[in-house]
Amino acid sequence: MSNESRPFMHRHLLDIESLDAQDVLHLLDAAEVFFEISRRPVRKVPTLRGKTVINLFYEASTRTRTSFELAGKRLSADVVNISTGTSSVKKGETLLDTVKTLEAMHPDVVIVRHSASGAPHFIAERLGCSVVNAGDGQHAHPTQALLDAFTVRRRLGRLDGLTVTICGDSKHSRVARSNAHLFQLFGGKVRFVGPRTLLPHHAESLGVEVYDRLEPALEGADVVMVLRIQRERLAGALLPSLREYSRTFGISERTLAAAPESAIVMHPGPMNRGVEIEPKVADGPRSVVLNQVEAGLAIRMAILYQLAGDAGTAPPS
Amino acid sequence: MSNESRPFMHRHLLDIESLDAQDVLHLLDAAEVFFEISRRPVRKVPTLRGKTVINLFYEASTRTRTSFELAGKRLSADVVNISTGTSSVKKGETLLDTVKTLEAMHPDVVIVRHSASGAPHFIAERLGCSVVNAGDGQHAHPTQALLDAFTVRRRLGRLDGLTVTICGDSKHSRVARSNAHLFQLFGGKVRFVGPRTLLPHHAESLGVEVYDRLEPALEGADVVMVLRIQRERLAGALLPSLREYSRTFGISERTLAAAPESAIVMHPGPMNRGVEIEPKVADGPRSVVLNQVEAGLAIRMAILYQLAGDAGTAPPS
Amino acid sequence: MSNESRPFMHRHLLDIESLDAQDVLHLLDAAEVFFEISRRPVRKVPTLRGKTVINLFYEASTRTRTSFELAGKRLSADVVNISTGTSSVKKGETLLDTVKTLEAMHPDVVIVRHSASGAPHFIAERLGCSVVNAGDGQHAHPTQALLDAFTVRRRLGRLDGLTVTICGDSKHSRVARSNAHLFQLFGGKVRFVGPRTLLPHHAESLGVEVYDRLEPALEGADVVMVLRIQRERLAGALLPSLREYSRTFGISERTLAAAPESAIVMHPGPMNRGVEIEPKVADGPRSVVLNQVEAGLAIRMAILYQLAGDAGTAPPS
Repeated sequence: MSNESRPFMHRHLLDIESLDAQDVLHLLDAAEVFFEISRRPVRKVPTLRGKTVINLFYEASTRTRTSFELAGKRLSADVVNISTGTSSVKKGETLLDTVKTLEAMHPDVVIVRHSASGAPHFIAERLGCSVVNAGDGQHAHPTQALLDAFTVRRRLGRLDGLTVTICGDSKHSRVARSNAHLFQLFGGKVRFVGPRTLLPHHAESLGVEVYDRLEPALEGADVVMVLRIQRERLAGALLPSLREYSRTFGISERTLAAAPESAIVMHPGPMNRGVEIEPKVADGPRSVVLNQVEAGLAIRMAILYQLAGDAGTAPPS
Repeated sequence: MSNESRPFMHRHLLDIESLDAQDVLHLLDAAEVFFEISRRPVRKVPTLRGKTVINLFYEASTRTRTSFELAGKRLSADVVNISTGTSSVKKGETLLDTVKTLEAMHPDVVIVRHSASGAPHFIAERLGCSVVNAGDGQHAHPTQALLDAFTVRRRLGRLDGLTVTICGDSKHSRVARSNAHLFQLFGGKVRFVGPRTLLPHHAESLGVEVYDRLEPALEGADVVMVLRIQRERLAGALLPSLREYSRTFGISERTLAAAPESAIVMHPGPMNRGVEIEPKVADGPRSVVLNQVEAGLAIRMAILYQLAGDAGTAPPS
Repeated sequence: MSNESRPFMHRHLLDIESLDAQDVLHLLDAAEVFFEISRRPVRKVPTLRGKTVINLFYEASTRTRTSFELAGKRLSADVVNISTGTSSVKKGETLLDTVKTLEAMHPDVVIVRHSASGAPHFIAERLGCSVVNAGDGQHAHPTQALLDAFTVRRRLGRLDGLTVTICGDSKHSRVARSNAHLFQLFGGKVRFVGPRTLLPHHAESLGVEVYDRLEPALEGADVVMVLRIQRERLAGALLPSLREYSRTFGISERTLAAAPESAIVMHPGPMNRGVEIEPKVADGPRSVVLNQVEAGLAIRMAILYQLAGDAGTAPPS
């Protein structure tokens, strides 16, 4: 880890495309400090005391919302959660009016999850405070990609030149898209594998290779990233039966034999056990699923610290 | 601003009728301090450390709940949110049993929003802790009127003798009612304007003048307060079509020409853009909509401070 | 109260059966300190600063959730609420994956309410952090029994050898079960009374006596504990009409005449006034319903302190 990495100069975290490798390394290095703090008996630093973080979630999510909430609280920020269920959205207020209203309360960071691709960018252009994209439609999920990179670097000891195979519905996946951008920043090869109906049409423009069979896609992979199957795709006839999907594209001990023994298995959660991932693999020694969650908290602390920390704030130690 | 204003001697904030002009000025002056604090890099004071504030919302609301929640947190109080969705209300518990239960946990302030007019008064008579009315049915919304007054005083430099025109469904509006009381405390003239079906029968007893045409109502107005149209009134046949309403009573650059150039435009939010207010006006230089939100946080901090601050607590600085 | 009570050696609080009388006394004694703190002007101690408490509620509850939340906050812990409505449960994630995910965020205590009996035990066996059962199905509600014991000891001056009559649907009640265990630890006699359809088949194995008439069950009782009638039992034909139930098993001034004058009346809430308990009794001098709520906060602070306090943490004073 370089202590000389360039400072993080962005006001928002909207996608991985806006970052370069230096930015990513800077965030991962900062996250190492918070990772260590999260394992102490007293898991709290005063860094963001008097700062305000708003979690604005238009889509439900346990792990991402909880992760950002705890990240803010462990930095001593005041954290407010707003979910669609209780919000003015129901009353027909526009997204922009909602966030302008929140901005008038002087938050430092607004974290947004929204089902519409581009919603956080739209907001960020119009607000004075920092915006973090916690997942927008099928577009981007930058904190997920960063926590995945953090996990990979910790486990494999490096980020450079990795072969990353992403299995499942990459066509509709913001996780796949953000990870594809991130690992390519470090000279990685990214492969998407899944039924043809679930592969993006423009895979080439993302720089990824596509496969419609699991075996060749897993060959030589350093990282096997399993995507969650959205059961609603079944209704849309984009998917064969779950059983058929599981047999052909599910990651099991049997199918994983095609990957190198050193390959690690990731999943952003929540997992459909027995569908896209076999329980034996999910709970096995190659799985880093829970490491990803732990990394998520550290990454989100690092991001909030970068965006809301004062120039004069001493870094936590 | 007078530093010699009489101390605030009330245990609750239930409506504007219970206050006199001195009380209002006292709260507005206190809010000036918190307004300034909210613009600092560190937006937090230890004033209510160890105090407990409960937000009990029987009606959903983003801005009011968030505003009270942040107000409590920035004063370092412990804040607990309870909304109907998760509450025992579903289990058939009476309102009184719910609040008595909460009282037994020794909160300092219970903030109540309820669809039944008078609910906060009913509670306040029976509880030992302080009660703040965050909006009850069609009755009162005192913090809204106070934040409106704060905004007006900041923008126009005075509260005395203003002409305030309130446009829309004043018949069912707690915002209209509380503002009518407040501005009359300062010798103001308050006008209600809207379709006859949406004007209160007892307007005279409120001391207000009623108009069923916008133009004369706006003549000479210092403040134009636009109410949110509740779309459910349409079903009740109390309203013409939205388009018709918008043309006749909506505040647009065209209709606003009847008001003095110096008149400011207010809206409690959430706005129905293109219905009761034209986007050009909402976002224009005469609109103080976002100032109202910012004022709301300061006013709520001032109220919590008045009701929950110990005699021995030094005022924040 | 003994200051020499043995330290509390458990990592979880799952049920009363796992505790002995010394454990119970230790928790009640600790709760006395927090009870006193809750009545101070500043109701907060820094004891759990930097610790994390997660409230994971699969069933809605105002009083229990709020009580645990405030308990954590007054100990200065970071508290995160997760309720089913916003959780990944909807997305089909298993309970174990959900809690493993939460564990990876390094909470100190996970508080679980779940409709499935045994869910907290299942979790506790598989997590590294402490688990508190906040009510599981028809099985156990240990913090309720502890707060009941605390209330009884405060009011009657002792716990030993009491006769406790529990009225209502003891068959499906975790409150009845946990209290039966607790009072028997102190040589108490526990009686269940209600319609035969609502009495457990295995009452003898619990060591309790069953009655299908109220009068003999109340004779000589020190404590009359009234259970909430679950209205959904009506549909299941386990209950006569509410009116019939109320007349035969409801606790009223009339029926209470069969109990000694010194007997106190308890209810875990929320109450169905006029069904299982007459308002006159609920609000009368023998009712300790609100004392129970107040005790609940103290008991929950004591438990969080025992489970999450560091060995090196000075006890609050």
